[in-house]
Amino acid sequence: MIPLQYLLRFLEEDTPYGDVTSEAVIPENVNAKAVIIAKQDGIIAGVEEAKALFEHFGVRVSVKKKDGEEVRKGDVILELEGNARAILLVERTALNIMGRMSGIATETRKLVEKVRKVNPNVKVAGTRKSLLRLLDKKAIMIGGGEPHRFSLSDAILIKDNHLALVPLEEAIKRAKAFSVYKIVEVEVENLGDAIRAAELGADVVMLDNMKPQEIEKVVEELKRRGLRDKVRIEVSGGITPENIEEYAKLDIDVISLGYLTHSVKNFDVSLEILGVL
Amino acid sequence: MIPLQYLLRFLEEDTPYGDVTSEAVIPENVNAKAVIIAKQDGIIAGVEEAKALFEHFGVRVSVKKKDGEEVRKGDVILELEGNARAILLVERTALNIMGRMSGIATETRKLVEKVRKVNPNVKVAGTRKSLLRLLDKKAIMIGGGEPHRFSLSDAILIKDNHLALVPLEEAIKRAKAFSVYKIVEVEVENLGDAIRAAELGADVVMLDNMKPQEIEKVVEELKRRGLRDKVRIEVSGGITPENIEEYAKLDIDVISLGYLTHSVKNFDVSLEILGVL
Amino acid sequence: MIPLQYLLRFLEEDTPYGDVTSEAVIPENVNAKAVIIAKQDGIIAGVEEAKALFEHFGVRVSVKKKDGEEVRKGDVILELEGNARAILLVERTALNIMGRMSGIATETRKLVEKVRKVNPNVKVAGTRKSLLRLLDKKAIMIGGGEPHRFSLSDAILIKDNHLALVPLEEAIKRAKAFSVYKIVEVEVENLGDAIRAAELGADVVMLDNMKPQEIEKVVEELKRRGLRDKVRIEVSGGITPENIEEYAKLDIDVISLGYLTHSVKNFDVSLEILGVL
Amino acid sequence: MIPLQYLLRFLEEDTPYGDVTSEAVIPENVNAKAVIIAKQDGIIAGVEEAKALFEHFGVRVSVKKKDGEEVRKGDVILELEGNARAILLVERTALNIMGRMSGIATETRKLVEKVRKVNPNVKVAGTRKSLLRLLDKKAIMIGGGEPHRFSLSDAILIKDNHLALVPLEEAIKRAKAFSVYKIVEVEVENLGDAIRAAELGADVVMLDNMKPQEIEKVVEELKRRGLRDKVRIEVSGGITPENIEEYAKLDIDVISLGYLTHSVKNFDVSLEILGVL
Amino acid sequence: MIPLQYLLRFLEEDTPYGDVTSEAVIPENVNAKAVIIAKQDGIIAGVEEAKALFEHFGVRVSVKKKDGEEVRKGDVILELEGNARAILLVERTALNIMGRMSGIATETRKLVEKVRKVNPNVKVAGTRKSLLRLLDKKAIMIGGGEPHRFSLSDAILIKDNHLALVPLEEAIKRAKAFSVYKIVEVEVENLGDAIRAAELGADVVMLDNMKPQEIEKVVEELKRRGLRDKVRIEVSGGITPENIEEYAKLDIDVISLGYLTHSVKNFDVSLEILGVL
Amino acid sequence: MIPLQYLLRFLEEDTPYGDVTSEAVIPENVNAKAVIIAKQDGIIAGVEEAKALFEHFGVRVSVKKKDGEEVRKGDVILELEGNARAILLVERTALNIMGRMSGIATETRKLVEKVRKVNPNVKVAGTRKSLLRLLDKKAIMIGGGEPHRFSLSDAILIKDNHLALVPLEEAIKRAKAFSVYKIVEVEVENLGDAIRAAELGADVVMLDNMKPQEIEKVVEELKRRGLRDKVRIEVSGGITPENIEEYAKLDIDVISLGYLTHSVKNFDVSLEILGVL
Repeated sequence: MIPLQYLLRFLEEDTPYGDVTSEAVIPENVNAKAVIIAKQDGIIAGVEEAKALFEHFGVRVSVKKKDGEEVRKGDVILELEGNARAILLVERTALNIMGRMSGIATETRKLVEKVRKVNPNVKVAGTRKSLLRLLDKKAIMIGGGEPHRFSLSDAILIKDNHLALVPLEEAIKRAKAFSVYKIVEVEVENLGDAIRAAELGADVVMLDNMKPQEIEKVVEELKRRGLRDKVRIEVSGGITPENIEEYAKLDIDVISLGYLTHSVKNFDVSLEILGVL
Repeated sequence: MIPLQYLLRFLEEDTPYGDVTSEAVIPENVNAKAVIIAKQDGIIAGVEEAKALFEHFGVRVSVKKKDGEEVRKGDVILELEGNARAILLVERTALNIMGRMSGIATETRKLVEKVRKVNPNVKVAGTRKSLLRLLDKKAIMIGGGEPHRFSLSDAILIKDNHLALVPLEEAIKRAKAFSVYKIVEVEVENLGDAIRAAELGADVVMLDNMKPQEIEKVVEELKRRGLRDKVRIEVSGGITPENIEEYAKLDIDVISLGYLTHSVKNFDVSLEILGVL
Repeated sequence: MIPLQYLLRFLEEDTPYGDVTSEAVIPENVNAKAVIIAKQDGIIAGVEEAKALFEHFGVRVSVKKKDGEEVRKGDVILELEGNARAILLVERTALNIMGRMSGIATETRKLVEKVRKVNPNVKVAGTRKSLLRLLDKKAIMIGGGEPHRFSLSDAILIKDNHLALVPLEEAIKRAKAFSVYKIVEVEVENLGDAIRAAELGADVVMLDNMKPQEIEKVVEELKRRGLRDKVRIEVSGGITPENIEEYAKLDIDVISLGYLTHSVKNFDVSLEILGVL
Repeated sequence: MIPLQYLLRFLEEDTPYGDVTSEAVIPENVNAKAVIIAKQDGIIAGVEEAKALFEHFGVRVSVKKKDGEEVRKGDVILELEGNARAILLVERTALNIMGRMSGIATETRKLVEKVRKVNPNVKVAGTRKSLLRLLDKKAIMIGGGEPHRFSLSDAILIKDNHLALVPLEEAIKRAKAFSVYKIVEVEVENLGDAIRAAELGADVVMLDNMKPQEIEKVVEELKRRGLRDKVRIEVSGGITPENIEEYAKLDIDVISLGYLTHSVKNFDVSLEILGVL
Repeated sequence: MIPLQYLLRFLEEDTPYGDVTSEAVIPENVNAKAVIIAKQDGIIAGVEEAKALFEHFGVRVSVKKKDGEEVRKGDVILELEGNARAILLVERTALNIMGRMSGIATETRKLVEKVRKVNPNVKVAGTRKSLLRLLDKKAIMIGGGEPHRFSLSDAILIKDNHLALVPLEEAIKRAKAFSVYKIVEVEVENLGDAIRAAELGADVVMLDNMKPQEIEKVVEELKRRGLRDKVRIEVSGGITPENIEEYAKLDIDVISLGYLTHSVKNFDVSLEILGVL
Repeated sequence: MIPLQYLLRFLEEDTPYGDVTSEAVIPENVNAKAVIIAKQDGIIAGVEEAKALFEHFGVRVSVKKKDGEEVRKGDVILELEGNARAILLVERTALNIMGRMSGIATETRKLVEKVRKVNPNVKVAGTRKSLLRLLDKKAIMIGGGEPHRFSLSDAILIKDNHLALVPLEEAIKRAKAFSVYKIVEVEVENLGDAIRAAELGADVVMLDNMKPQEIEKVVEELKRRGLRDKVRIEVSGGITPENIEEYAKLDIDVISLGYLTHSVKNFDVSLEILGVL
């Protein structure tokens, strides 16, 4: 549940002095009927957010497709009835939110399904490469993905930049001493570090920029040492919709992709005024 | 100049309870030297914003590549010196901002140059399809693009949804009466409406989803009627990097593309800790 | 539509720790009936804002005079029913808003009517000399005035201070290159600059602190050169309710007065508790 | 000391998307020298606030006239050196603040001096008829006035609307029981209520809309009953710069005027760019 | 009436990315019935605030015990019906607010009753030793206490640190000249200063860290000089629930204790889900 | 690192209209020297926060005792030099923050040391029973405690209220499927549920309100089944400084106490003006 206040900030950015077009052109008391329509196939998201924004301005909303539902080009997602100026005020902000969230949800769902066919135990995750964090993380979950860390505050992830300052062993020891309630993950780039991190008690090992064969070796070595059950394996770096299946067939836990949020193409939705009420 | 407050909101979203990794792993008083490096070729943007964020946390910043400069893969953009925890706290937010803005600036520059070669009088513009409006509009300008409307408050743009409620003539009349200080633009989809809008005194006519040949006919008819000099022509809808030159060679003023902000791929930048100071 | 949040800031400023008088004196559950009454003749404004504030605190509001209506001393503008403490909490803030907005609307209407009688083509505009921008701009529009620039972001206005740094020709060239969607206005103080600005393609020329005879000469010269139709003329500086008609009879487009917002006398309105419900 | 945050809100309202004129017209790195000059005689205020705003944007400020000083037309108040875009960004907001505060301070000082000549024991106070409370109250103090209640939270003032719901005796009793740390004032409209309020222990009695002769009778009766020393007398309603001396010569404590804030004429100040640095 | 916005800040601090437990575990559309129950005897407070928070999330609330009522262990305070996730989202914040406010109200009531038995004219007050000022001041009032100064803005209290910089006489003189609408209180530590402060016209004298016998001497001396009726006496410092009666029996006006807010033990309340609706 | 903005909110709450005492009594340009002194023995915290606040107002700060250091009654913690009004403005807010944080840090340290003597493997944790979350969590860490969940967003904790709606098995299954990056903890009240939760893969089992003997039985049974190494054990409920050692000697991981934040007694610190600079 994303706070209304958070959503209103986008609208305020779009209307520091109101909507001059509607104020100039549309008389104050015109009521209209409108629909929001999918202009492509995919998974819809942002419906709850769009609904909250329209309702905040007194527009009645009827939800035809819920968050996470599959839609096809032409499907009506929301029906709206209310003051025409209010509908037009919210239009672009609501479409921008739905467009972004549905774009992420749709892409996530595609990858989740690809992966699931190959290996139902592997999750697809986003990263922190996002300036619209609440929207993007929710969209990933709606798409069936794993949200990964929301922020720097909720799990410990030791990366190369930390290891440039503190040796691996020391870093993991400190991390584990910090709190029982935070997962400790370590990003590694080779077999040796992966094994060491697992031995030192990391909860998750992230194999960064490794090829499938290299990953396979890490998994085998972890199994050989009886460590595979004690650690989750995340793979990241260089993974694309094209090659994701090669990774998915490995005995790993999570595939994470910055791509889900840093290269997202908005889903195409539009609002159509059907007429005066 | 984007207010620091606006930038800090992204950081706050990433650190509701601080950066638990650094707090756990890196001792409080470690000072480090780091660089931010381009991982691809393109136009860099977001440098001013990244600088402001790092400096807010006491990190000394030396700018090696300024906003709008061309960079090549491997180029150092910023050199940083300061408290290691502070550098790591800001890292992802700064990279996310630079990544998005440089992505948009790079893509904009590409299109601007394509268009300029064909027709130096035509501008490339973004739209309001963006939830990161201040960042995105600035990035477009850095890329050499035309910012178009910042928000619903700064120009009048009469679109199909307005025309579903008010006849064209009435709409333009009201818009022109509203204020001398706001441009009046009308979105049209056919020759007849384009001519009518120009005759009624619209400052800009947006030809939406028209093919180059259709646009050409509009331009010719406007010229024939002596209206071409009195109105700016924007074309929009269905324009891609692939077909943009077909539009650019027409006698128009602006080509606008939602694509610049709603389907942007982040530019790849990364931060590397070089060592302890 | 001014956001409720914006209006609540005034109330918060008036009640950092609540209303100690009502809390001390009025029992918690008293319900009362009250009216807001005009104490002078004029144009009422701020009704929508007062209504929104009272309703936010659960007070039922019945609007008797709408924004923009003419009222006479003694007229009831709003009828209120609800918790007595809530009515008294909002009282002063609502009256302050209505007082300021109605003061501006009333004065604007007076000038608009004066001007209209002499020349129906001339608009009366406010300026940016206001720290209560949203309220003041809305009040001017309610009074029938032209809102002019809302802020520094929505139109380009080249003034003497810019011209102290950049030559006129260069300034206009850059301004016109900046964006198709922003009006370019130039403030000038003599005939020569006015002609040059028009020739260089300024959308609006502001004749600053010129006497009617001087303005007349500018208009004539613009006509002589066939430029009058291509440029709007705003006159500003030294214009008062007393001498405005001398300006209005000229062939100009806009008369702007800082006076509408920087020397406004609040309209007198008061709230009367009629009794217990 | 008004918080910077409070002042920045005015600037944000003036620049939701920056200052498009300077961005278009003035190159980024131009440094300029400028002055802020009084365009009339009076008492200057808002200097501290203007200084804080300019300095926030890196402009060096040299104060030539301090808050509360008398200035004459043509006097330099502030000298500024710094980035030209920064100076122009803050210009209007700083002038608006100085204009309003100096307008109030100047008018307050005039009345304070008028009153002082007649009776040095009488103070001149503002009221809560102000939407710019922090600025206005500070300006009144700079002008030598009495700030009166800042807000509904800091003193108890029982007015006619309270007395429409609770009898006078009960109201004062409850008010005095509420807190030792809040002054209790009662607004009355006739001799009887004034005496009763004083007898019941009000700290201040406000004689509302009474003529000088009526006020004189109240004072005499209070003296006759030995109550004059136990209560402060405030007079309010219908007092103007023209008739204030008639009130000032009475044996009262405070004269309050809504007029100081609800009908203020801004003091005329302007900024002049002197040239490039 | 504490603004909802103020209360929501606590909730936002508890849910930067929502409630992951409920989102993971409880299906979206489950409706539940729950109660909030007192786990100890005392005075309940924070009911209005808890109600406002639950209702903001669409939970229906039935108040069984109102603010200020005495409750016994096991008593139901609120009955709740609504979406299970919403109830669980608000649970801890609502309990934290009720726990703190009821803790303060309960302790205040105890002391008020102790004092009242000995001397009904003496009030029990909190201080500014609180970071949750609005909640704490309201809780003290609900407990029957005197709120004292809300903040640094609403009364003048001259303390030892002021007197280290300005002599007593000068300080009081300036304070009394500052405003008629602010109480002037002086903190003193010996008989001489107490008498001097009263003679100089302080409204309240705070006897800091004095023993009952010393306080008695001050009171007697004030009476002897005819000053007792002109000044309120507050005693503070070293007063505990154990020794408060020794102070209460003196002829003083207020006993203030930082202890009420800086050492408060939360009142024990809990929320129980009764089942699915 | 707590954001300055967060700390300034406390100051704003204490000064809606500034500090009227200093403004009335202390001349504007007085500079003073002051110290903050411990009035009891303990562990100091909040030093970084106090420093940030004083420096924000231009006061020079010299830190004599750092966060986490042991102090004795009379020790100087901070030395301050700067404008006297600025020092007095911040005084109470800084002392309130240091008082609260040091109170929590001192109490935490006491318990941590008690526990450590008995069993160095057991951590002492706070809970979410706190309305000053950022301050309280940081204070606990400074005291050597375990911060536990910061908020509802960073770990999954299935409690009795969740189990009233969803069966244990189902709840744990859903929780584990939610995310790899969030710890899953289950609150149980008996042996059977503890074993079941461990078997189902909970990362942490919280034994709520169990006596030491009962806890011992759970631990033994977990060992017998080979589950002890796979799960962390937290004990909570009814634990006090008096009985904590009885729990600490068990083979558990964490002891959590709401008492650390919901019944904290502020540490006594005071500010003394030493004289004029």
